[in-house]
Amino acid sequence: MPKNLVQKILDSHVASGTPKAGEPVELVIDQTLTQDATGTMAYIQLEAMGVDQVKTELSVSYVDHNTLQSGYMNADDHAYLQSVAAKHGVLFSRPGNGICHQVHLERFAKPGRTLIGSDSHTPTAGAMASIAMGAGGLDVAKAMAGLTYRITYPEVVNVRLEGELPHGVSSKDIILELLRRLSVKGGVGRIFEYTGPGVKNLSVYQRATITNMGAELGATTSIFPSDETTRAFLARQQREEDYMPMEADPDADYDETVVINLSGLQPLAACPHSPDNVKPVSELAGMKVDQVSIGSCTNSGFEDLMKAANVLKGKTVAPNVSLTVSPGSRQVLTKLIENGALATFVQAGARILECTCGPCIGMGQSPKTDGVSLRTFNRNFYGRSGTLSAGVYLVSPETAAASAVAGVFTDPSTVDYSDAIPAEPSYVDDSMICQPSDDPESVEIIRGPNIKPLPENTPLAAHIEKKAVIKLPDNITTDHIAPAGAEVLPYRSNIEKLSTFVFRNNKEGFADVCQANDGGFIVAGENYGQGSSREHAAMAPMYLGIKAVMAKSFARIHKANLINFGIIPLTFGNPADYDDIDEMDVLAIEDTTQAATGKVSVKNVTKGTEYVMDCDITDDDFVLLQHGGALNFIKNSQPLN
Amino acid sequence: MPKNLVQKILDSHVASGTPKAGEPVELVIDQTLTQDATGTMAYIQLEAMGVDQVKTELSVSYVDHNTLQSGYMNADDHAYLQSVAAKHGVLFSRPGNGICHQVHLERFAKPGRTLIGSDSHTPTAGAMASIAMGAGGLDVAKAMAGLTYRITYPEVVNVRLEGELPHGVSSKDIILELLRRLSVKGGVGRIFEYTGPGVKNLSVYQRATITNMGAELGATTSIFPSDETTRAFLARQQREEDYMPMEADPDADYDETVVINLSGLQPLAACPHSPDNVKPVSELAGMKVDQVSIGSCTNSGFEDLMKAANVLKGKTVAPNVSLTVSPGSRQVLTKLIENGALATFVQAGARILECTCGPCIGMGQSPKTDGVSLRTFNRNFYGRSGTLSAGVYLVSPETAAASAVAGVFTDPSTVDYSDAIPAEPSYVDDSMICQPSDDPESVEIIRGPNIKPLPENTPLAAHIEKKAVIKLPDNITTDHIAPAGAEVLPYRSNIEKLSTFVFRNNKEGFADVCQANDGGFIVAGENYGQGSSREHAAMAPMYLGIKAVMAKSFARIHKANLINFGIIPLTFGNPADYDDIDEMDVLAIEDTTQAATGKVSVKNVTKGTEYVMDCDITDDDFVLLQHGGALNFIKNSQPLN
Repeated sequence: MPKNLVQKILDSHVASGTPKAGEPVELVIDQTLTQDATGTMAYIQLEAMGVDQVKTELSVSYVDHNTLQSGYMNADDHAYLQSVAAKHGVLFSRPGNGICHQVHLERFAKPGRTLIGSDSHTPTAGAMASIAMGAGGLDVAKAMAGLTYRITYPEVVNVRLEGELPHGVSSKDIILELLRRLSVKGGVGRIFEYTGPGVKNLSVYQRATITNMGAELGATTSIFPSDETTRAFLARQQREEDYMPMEADPDADYDETVVINLSGLQPLAACPHSPDNVKPVSELAGMKVDQVSIGSCTNSGFEDLMKAANVLKGKTVAPNVSLTVSPGSRQVLTKLIENGALATFVQAGARILECTCGPCIGMGQSPKTDGVSLRTFNRNFYGRSGTLSAGVYLVSPETAAASAVAGVFTDPSTVDYSDAIPAEPSYVDDSMICQPSDDPESVEIIRGPNIKPLPENTPLAAHIEKKAVIKLPDNITTDHIAPAGAEVLPYRSNIEKLSTFVFRNNKEGFADVCQANDGGFIVAGENYGQGSSREHAAMAPMYLGIKAVMAKSFARIHKANLINFGIIPLTFGNPADYDDIDEMDVLAIEDTTQAATGKVSVKNVTKGTEYVMDCDITDDDFVLLQHGGALNFIKNSQPLN
Repeated sequence: MPKNLVQKILDSHVASGTPKAGEPVELVIDQTLTQDATGTMAYIQLEAMGVDQVKTELSVSYVDHNTLQSGYMNADDHAYLQSVAAKHGVLFSRPGNGICHQVHLERFAKPGRTLIGSDSHTPTAGAMASIAMGAGGLDVAKAMAGLTYRITYPEVVNVRLEGELPHGVSSKDIILELLRRLSVKGGVGRIFEYTGPGVKNLSVYQRATITNMGAELGATTSIFPSDETTRAFLARQQREEDYMPMEADPDADYDETVVINLSGLQPLAACPHSPDNVKPVSELAGMKVDQVSIGSCTNSGFEDLMKAANVLKGKTVAPNVSLTVSPGSRQVLTKLIENGALATFVQAGARILECTCGPCIGMGQSPKTDGVSLRTFNRNFYGRSGTLSAGVYLVSPETAAASAVAGVFTDPSTVDYSDAIPAEPSYVDDSMICQPSDDPESVEIIRGPNIKPLPENTPLAAHIEKKAVIKLPDNITTDHIAPAGAEVLPYRSNIEKLSTFVFRNNKEGFADVCQANDGGFIVAGENYGQGSSREHAAMAPMYLGIKAVMAKSFARIHKANLINFGIIPLTFGNPADYDDIDEMDVLAIEDTTQAATGKVSVKNVTKGTEYVMDCDITDDDFVLLQHGGALNFIKNSQPLN
């Protein structure tokens, strides 16, 4: 039977389960990656599992998020990560070496491999025909320990690309078009496989922008075939031996097909405050712009920045615009220095930032009050920029650069600039990637005072009666639950402190409410927990005594994180039940063992009503919930070495 | 009568007063500069004076401190500064264009001119034979309004340089040697004029490092002659017309002469936590290093960075060292891109930061807990790096680079590297310096919500009885009083909020103590208020109700700031009186008009004792105190336009 590309790779990695859409399968994981905002917790969990050396083919620990270093906490995290990597057989990419997804694409991603990473944009490596998925830190730790990773076997959507991108239109506009059509919930439970004659017209960088931001669709991941373009990319990276041609069989089946004609696209922008709030740039043209930020794991590769440089060449940013450029890696930066593009940026007035995530994760460069900020990033959630009143628009590098020069929203297809990208040199420098120690026993783990022990959960109680301490609308992101940004990120290794920031933009004093009520339940709408993979969005609520989340639907990674930390994910069987609950109603799960059956009765003690909710979990999930989370379960099981 | 260089320039600018050491004189000010951490308040005060257009030859507003932008506050300040500059005839150097002192040296400093700046390192321009002094923001605002600037006519110290610097020894080591000999109080009331055959062996950059860090001596300023080296520098800056040869007359008199034989110097380091705690690097060699930071207004010029690049060429930073490089300006950055030095830095593993003050002012790159940080900066005050437990060592670029490679403190004179600096290209790009508006009336001032009105003081009471709300040791810096760093700097435009941070590392809850006691007095030791020129260190205590500071001695700028904000500066006539006072003793100034007489009786109500303190102020100062500060006085006087 002919297989699509997704099936080929997944099926060769299934350890157990039925490879059929909707069924749980356990996957063998070849590679893992972590970044510093989620990595500290992941490695603390790896240590707690008692694993000496990682069991994966390759595991890399990147530092790219917390690099502003306001206070000792970040540098302490970096020192911990460097030492724990040396001891346990993990490569360590030093601060300044680059953004995890960009460096992984350049140096490590391989066709046909599975990769999970404690960052929701791990699918970037799908540009290299890898099945690359975001996961909670604990799941990444488990994979490093040699355990399998469970997913629901996905539906596969065939995104058939036809034609060629016109002048001014970018691969960013392809994924924005898909977000426009399908919304941020459109990818849940699905993998997007790109096919068709348009594929060959897209470089690996262009493909990476699409697979990266496939995360915004809620997709499990996205993938491109491995072809001569892939080979050439790998050859330039001096690792052509990693090349393997991979594509779907002719006549392979897909669950759905979407056709995009590249020739018919126009420049698009995702408007505040959601990546699917997409409009043509031409409709926004003329709006005054205060800030333009180029970079992030979505658009900071060599080619992305060269396109922006082409637009900026010989121009100067408008007096009202602050333009920042964050190259994706030291490799990219070096190439830009050598081919003159960095000089072009500086002469145009750009502020050159470190090769890190930077403003994308709210680490600096917050816009001014009511500011309009155009960013080549992947998320524009409310408040993520650090300025609540700012409006963030997600655009291509070309739109960003053209608007920076004009000082107003500008459609780059109306601007005259060269589309020619100079040949990318073959330059590789891994000197900032530390190899693990030859003598792991001698490595001392450096643990600064902000790195606190893991909070522990209690086993599942038979009966739980708590208040609905918060009631939330649709599309709540993990940025709402556990905010990012310069003020909060330093506490990613300190859950007690982090928990004081939970829902700070939704309900002030949420942590106090939880404490006063001995925990509680969260009630939410559709697509709860979309966005970043951060398990802190489960860990901090767990610390606050949250025992269940009752939502209309869940984002994939967050649901897994809830189970990992012993929080029951319940889905409203009847959406009207959501309407029936008011904040601070007392709710009771009379028999938590019902979770294993898929249907759970919940009494609204305040209203005197009762609901039947769905609990779509596996038997294994239920065991984790019973133990109070996966780490308790693992600790209670046999040693992993 | 022959004159030294200081006398020549000062005497040509004296508007009134007797040009004799120790006497107050009023100076005509040709140029002013501000930076964003002090500038917002300075321009708010300029606005309060009702001045339409500045009256100086040149005034420049730089943005170089608050460029991390964690939150809307910094970007709002930038927008305010840009609009207020456009409206009032001030040049505006945009964020990312460079550090004020570096850019001013490159583009604006002129031999024979007077310059005051709301930054204590304004003396950097003394490298160009300018009398350049740090001042409080209000004094800078007054100068922009066309008013004179009062100083005590200084003693002039002749620093005679002989010989030539050996390999591995830097001009940084010259100023460190002077700090070793004279201490951080050694320059109070004095200007250091550099002379002798060694001068011609020093470039303008090397001179600038010395004049810059002369601020650490407590000096009024420092100055070098203007010679053929100066002419060549100005020619490369495409402004040779600004050249004017200037030097002391033969046989000019000095109040003191210090001789330094450059040939006999060795690499030095200022150890924690004071710039005068100087030791030879050879004594520190081998100590493990965690961080190395190259940059700041002291050592971020073209030549400084080229020296570091020479040491780093073909090398890689040690795995335990995080190396940061902050170029001083866009001009410097462009030159480094074009001559390959930036590639050298990146290849060595350096993290390239923006062209700003950055870690020097605690804006990011805080070291890890207990970290050892080598910095080419000018201050290593306790806590300034953002990590209280860190030890910061001030060193030359050569020592910094050699230590980064070795991973331990390393004497660069023991390292083999090229001393040859490539010829500096003549490259100028002022596109990020905005000209004032041609139509100032049309410019709308942009005032974000964090920019609060000026706090107002009340006129001086006849009798003041308050508690000594804090008792402090010697050498308290303005960093102790009004801390810098990423957490506090965003509130430089919001004195109410800022006041909650006053003395946070000396006495927790100081603001609450002041509030509970309706203000109070500050009791301190020698050299109170050394360091940064920030008037916030007077303004925030004023807001908290501080009515007098009783100290063994004062730093020059801070004393002026106290008077400007209506706080009486009293000096212990008898040092034993300092010992007699305990924190929270009730003290009474029975008759504040005594301040005009130079002697003030202070009763210790708690102890039943009485002290006579000195009040070394002028009649004009007393008038300011009576009004509750200079701004009240100006507002009560006639309009300035």
